[in-house]
Amino acid sequence: MTERVEVRQSVLKENDRIAAELRTGFAGRQLLVLNLISSPGAGKTTILEGTLEALRATRRRTAVLTGDIQTERDAERLRGHGFPALQITTGGTCHLDAAMVQRALAGLPLDDLDVLFIENVGNLVCPASYDLGEDTKIVVLSVAEGDDKPLKYPGIFRRARLMLLHKIDLLPYTRFNREAAIADARRVNPDIEVVETSCLAEPGLGAWIRWLEARIEEKRLAGRPTRG
Amino acid sequence: MTERVEVRQSVLKENDRIAAELRTGFAGRQLLVLNLISSPGAGKTTILEGTLEALRATRRRTAVLTGDIQTERDAERLRGHGFPALQITTGGTCHLDAAMVQRALAGLPLDDLDVLFIENVGNLVCPASYDLGEDTKIVVLSVAEGDDKPLKYPGIFRRARLMLLHKIDLLPYTRFNREAAIADARRVNPDIEVVETSCLAEPGLGAWIRWLEARIEEKRLAGRPTRG
Repeated sequence: MTERVEVRQSVLKENDRIAAELRTGFAGRQLLVLNLISSPGAGKTTILEGTLEALRATRRRTAVLTGDIQTERDAERLRGHGFPALQITTGGTCHLDAAMVQRALAGLPLDDLDVLFIENVGNLVCPASYDLGEDTKIVVLSVAEGDDKPLKYPGIFRRARLMLLHKIDLLPYTRFNREAAIADARRVNPDIEVVETSCLAEPGLGAWIRWLEARIEEKRLAGRPTRG
Repeated sequence: MTERVEVRQSVLKENDRIAAELRTGFAGRQLLVLNLISSPGAGKTTILEGTLEALRATRRRTAVLTGDIQTERDAERLRGHGFPALQITTGGTCHLDAAMVQRALAGLPLDDLDVLFIENVGNLVCPASYDLGEDTKIVVLSVAEGDDKPLKYPGIFRRARLMLLHKIDLLPYTRFNREAAIADARRVNPDIEVVETSCLAEPGLGAWIRWLEARIEEKRLAGRPTRG
């Protein structure tokens, strides 16, 4: 088992090295990069579909990398919204790593983007450990999943800047305790921001789009770092 | 990366060895062992709570091992139903393995049980690869997760004997296509059985309990293997 732990540590160290390279490259382009993490079926792809439509309206230049074990389905769905979307098929691996992202970036017009979404493999556990060079991790929690998730999967809630409390329209049909879920998320991460969203009914994605536009604007104003 | 693959293969081989030992031990006791796998929040623990109540009524001797990354919450919930329930806290590992189960079994009255439920860590990916010596893997898919899961996570749907299509009462509030989900599950596993369930409204757990009682009865009639 020691051998296993050592291999994992060396894998994570190599991942961090590549992620640091990616981060430098993103910063030099004032490119906002968001890493979306959730359980399978929490609603990441559907949120991204609505988000791409909103960003098309405000003329934000956008692209998506979407991770999946096997299929190309999500990229096909996302390409329908007028922006480049590339699938990273992990072939069984339960998370994206920085090297997979680095390889996929070759297919994207990085110099001409304002925001890049990385949709991770549906998994609340493993993706939390892999830095992809993003500005921010975002955790999506569907109210259909139950309010106990922040304490059961603290790793991702600790590392995320934002929790999207999604499918909030299902609240009346579940036993989800919204106050308890938010309080628990803040127990593991006092700074976590919370935005409520839904795609099939009110309140929609408005509050999330406003949060996102503010982050894109911050990044744009951050200024291109001077280079030698 | 080769080193990583080799370590993973040797870990899985050692796991299979322990799982084979466990399976022999379970068979010798005519003990039915079910390994429940799903996304986080699909409803495994709530299904088990209802199941334990039903099995108490039919006087089936039952126990639960429940896996979690961090907390003891699920075992506490399950112990409220009058049967032994032990938590396996994996400390960050995203699945149960056979060695964890073997260690936990020391705390259970194996000779006095009809059925043992192993509730895996909430994760559709990694738990599918680890044999725990069970008779049957069961995949729980909540309709709130979307109908694309069987093709996106084929590993577990291929290995499961039964799919519980759960929270079926949420069907009217989602875009879940029940026929497509079942057809896709059968594309990856033509033999998979499907039972629809819900805990908060009709149809309840009746069909699942009947399926389960039939399996317990089969196992009881399978006869104790002769020993030297």
